[in-house]
Amino acid sequence: MTSEQLILELTLTAWKAQLKRADQLFQSFTDEQLQSDIAPGKNSGFYLLGHLTATHDRLFELLGLSTRLHPELDAAFLSNPDKSGLPVPPVAELKQYWTDVNTKLNDHIAKLLPSDWLQRHTQVSAEDFVKEPHRNKLNVIISRTNHVAYHLGQLVWLKK
Amino acid sequence: MTSEQLILELTLTAWKAQLKRADQLFQSFTDEQLQSDIAPGKNSGFYLLGHLTATHDRLFELLGLSTRLHPELDAAFLSNPDKSGLPVPPVAELKQYWTDVNTKLNDHIAKLLPSDWLQRHTQVSAEDFVKEPHRNKLNVIISRTNHVAYHLGQLVWLKK
Repeated sequence: MTSEQLILELTLTAWKAQLKRADQLFQSFTDEQLQSDIAPGKNSGFYLLGHLTATHDRLFELLGLSTRLHPELDAAFLSNPDKSGLPVPPVAELKQYWTDVNTKLNDHIAKLLPSDWLQRHTQVSAEDFVKEPHRNKLNVIISRTNHVAYHLGQLVWLKK
Repeated sequence: MTSEQLILELTLTAWKAQLKRADQLFQSFTDEQLQSDIAPGKNSGFYLLGHLTATHDRLFELLGLSTRLHPELDAAFLSNPDKSGLPVPPVAELKQYWTDVNTKLNDHIAKLLPSDWLQRHTQVSAEDFVKEPHRNKLNVIISRTNHVAYHLGQLVWLKK
């Protein structure tokens, strides 16, 4: 294994570890617990489940892997805050989306070659990428790993 | 720049970005705000400031950089939960420790060579490291970056 491969593996292992931790937490809540607010006036667990699912669903296109599965989640979980009154799926369905999105995403990710990771993501032009080589696919995953960790810090406070 | 150098840079940039975000947040709180609890029955901002400072202070020795600055913080902020009644420094002093620790840590980190990052950290033996090459210094930083992000998710809920 080259140094580059080892560093890539560390980064992807961190991503999967945070995902697994979030998944275990989400699966540990009853539907009622998930729908309660983490703290008075703060997000519900349900909102964060939708927010993380929508964020990861967008990665299919951002990383150039495939079309995304659930663009309909963006309105209620990304473009608007919790309790917007916008239509949302039932809890069991949203939990299934979370599983489907992450499973399919990691299937695609497993097929990427080390050289793919340092290619530009789809929101940066070839021209800009020459000047900004850090806007690559790996950096997207590093950023999303920290994003999961950030919300995990909140989700652990959801009452069981 | 080689691929290895670029990936290392992405990882260290993520570390510094999370640190900066935490620092800006800590500096934005008054002493009184910092000492309040983030949510009923949860940690205070002050505890998390001490917890992150102590965690980062341990990195001097874990990464083999130098002796640590504030081992006296461990009892109140790492080995025990918030409100343990153990002695703690005044707020202004703890804020200074946070700044001192991160500044000195990043000064040391800036001097590490790419090849240093894949060397073992000080808590793994040379023998174990042969079998577990992921137990290196870079992985410690990846883990601590996610740790900062995790607590940032909580700190943003501290009332201003």
